Amino acid sequence: MSGVGPGAASPGAGSGPWRLPPAVTIRDVGPRDGLQVEQPLPPETRVALTRALAAAGLREIEVAAFVSPRAVPAMAGAAELIAELGSLPGVVRTALVPNERGARDALAAGVDALTVTVSASERYSLRNTRMGRAQALAGLAPICAAAAARGDGVPVDVVISCAFGSPYEGEIAHAEVELCRDAAVAAGAARVTLADTTGMATPPRVAALVQRLGGEIGVHFHETRGTGLLNAWAAVACGVTRLDSSLGGLGGSPFASGAAGNVATEELVLVLEDAGVATGIDLDRLLRASALLAQAVGRELPSAVARSGPRLPPAR
Amino acid sequence: MSGVGPGAASPGAGSGPWRLPPAVTIRDVGPRDGLQVEQPLPPETRVALTRALAAAGLREIEVAAFVSPRAVPAMAGAAELIAELGSLPGVVRTALVPNERGARDALAAGVDALTVTVSASERYSLRNTRMGRAQALAGLAPICAAAAARGDGVPVDVVISCAFGSPYEGEIAHAEVELCRDAAVAAGAARVTLADTTGMATPPRVAALVQRLGGEIGVHFHETRGTGLLNAWAAVACGVTRLDSSLGGLGGSPFASGAAGNVATEELVLVLEDAGVATGIDLDRLLRASALLAQAVGRELPSAVARSGPRLPPAR
Repeated sequence: MSGVGPGAASPGAGSGPWRLPPAVTIRDVGPRDGLQVEQPLPPETRVALTRALAAAGLREIEVAAFVSPRAVPAMAGAAELIAELGSLPGVVRTALVPNERGARDALAAGVDALTVTVSASERYSLRNTRMGRAQALAGLAPICAAAAARGDGVPVDVVISCAFGSPYEGEIAHAEVELCRDAAVAAGAARVTLADTTGMATPPRVAALVQRLGGEIGVHFHETRGTGLLNAWAAVACGVTRLDSSLGGLGGSPFASGAAGNVATEELVLVLEDAGVATGIDLDRLLRASALLAQAVGRELPSAVARSGPRLPPAR
Repeated sequence: MSGVGPGAASPGAGSGPWRLPPAVTIRDVGPRDGLQVEQPLPPETRVALTRALAAAGLREIEVAAFVSPRAVPAMAGAAELIAELGSLPGVVRTALVPNERGARDALAAGVDALTVTVSASERYSLRNTRMGRAQALAGLAPICAAAAARGDGVPVDVVISCAFGSPYEGEIAHAEVELCRDAAVAAGAARVTLADTTGMATPPRVAALVQRLGGEIGVHFHETRGTGLLNAWAAVACGVTRLDSSLGGLGGSPFASGAAGNVATEELVLVLEDAGVATGIDLDRLLRASALLAQAVGRELPSAVARSGPRLPPAR
């Protein structure tokens, strides 16, 4: 019996009928997407969670949403939270904004980047934002203009929800997603991310859409059908290098019935690092952030790695 | 907005930087591996679950374990269960046996195939069976001989536990797994299956071991670290065509702390069928079996597909 001991590199990294990029960027959306459906946490806890993510090596974190505190009580106090958090050297602090007013508030608060969601599904758009898709797309230009107007120029990422299907219309044609992408780019978006809001993506569907739109696209998967991690892997195997995930696998839309948690950052880091894809994230430190999160929400997290730990005990 | 309607084939089947086999065989281990750690269910419920799996298209089902009812109360009454179940045309009814005595009981009861577990980990073997690995391997020949001696010849599948790592020794060298495989084949095993007992497999580790042992190997993954479905996908992308999974994602070892449920059959069928890999299993019928199982165990199942349903509502 020859254990090679904890901390050994994967003997199989590089094995397998796939080609993976050498590195990816993971954006942790836990402080926003993860917490938005939870009981509101005190601002100092949200700040501590964000700092723990930064300490683990996350270089992009969605820290807040500038939305109505009546609609999403858990996201209240965004400006105060950004002020308390302060700058995090080397970390892009992103905020979700629903409209130009939210964007102006977020820009004034000093965030480093903005995320705006539009939906490829007309009906999802109407239910989620009370705006049709065309109106939502038309709202992007003023947001991007406001972001560009801040002295340092703030990048805007447009997240296309229901990119792999809608709980209302069913399948969403690629052309509909491409239309949203093109509108976002025309409006001044620096990036575009495909979101699988209710877990309808599968590996071939991911591959087909990434092949159509190009590997510079970002991806954002949910575990509604337990396929989020697999879809993230498939995207990386198709050349995607920007992925969203959420500490502990928390998350879900307050508006989409049947939505479940995001891909857990813990799982994504474990499998990508083991496959030789650099994430810049230290899993053991990340698990300290997970422990903080579990304590904050008062229950076990959906992330199986948060519950079971790394493959091997941390090297001493 | 152009929904293409429920029931449409994956527009992307065949897309993606992977080559998948045209078909695989899924063995549902739910009535055994899934139920062994549950409160004992009445035999008629176990029979009904097995029949529901057969009705969904499963062609191989691990229906029982001929083990001590004191050690595993949920598996009591295996012979009576097989008698009540009767033959299932077109379905291989497999039973797990721990030793020659269990094998003789299972053969007398009329099962169609046997599964025997040995461990690549010496310490796991000792804790799980109170036999060292060498003793367990030596026990295979009499089991295979007994199986071969029944008039119709009964195939034996040797399942190698801890094939991707052990909670005790850490990493397990490929040579140790190969030694177990070679011993099993020499003893007369018809097949060999690699089991990831505590969720230590990752895609490159799966690829490396499958490349070493050959694609005729079977695989059996757990979701202890949320990577089971991804590992199953990776195995199929490496040419593996025999996979274990468990209805509802139930399961876990009564002996391995930290073990969690098996890959859910529902998730495996969803992703493979969507990728154009034929499983012979009808997901809508499978979900009827899931509903029966959820009712029987009295709680929500781990399977996210069992909870959230197929991608689209069933076609009418």
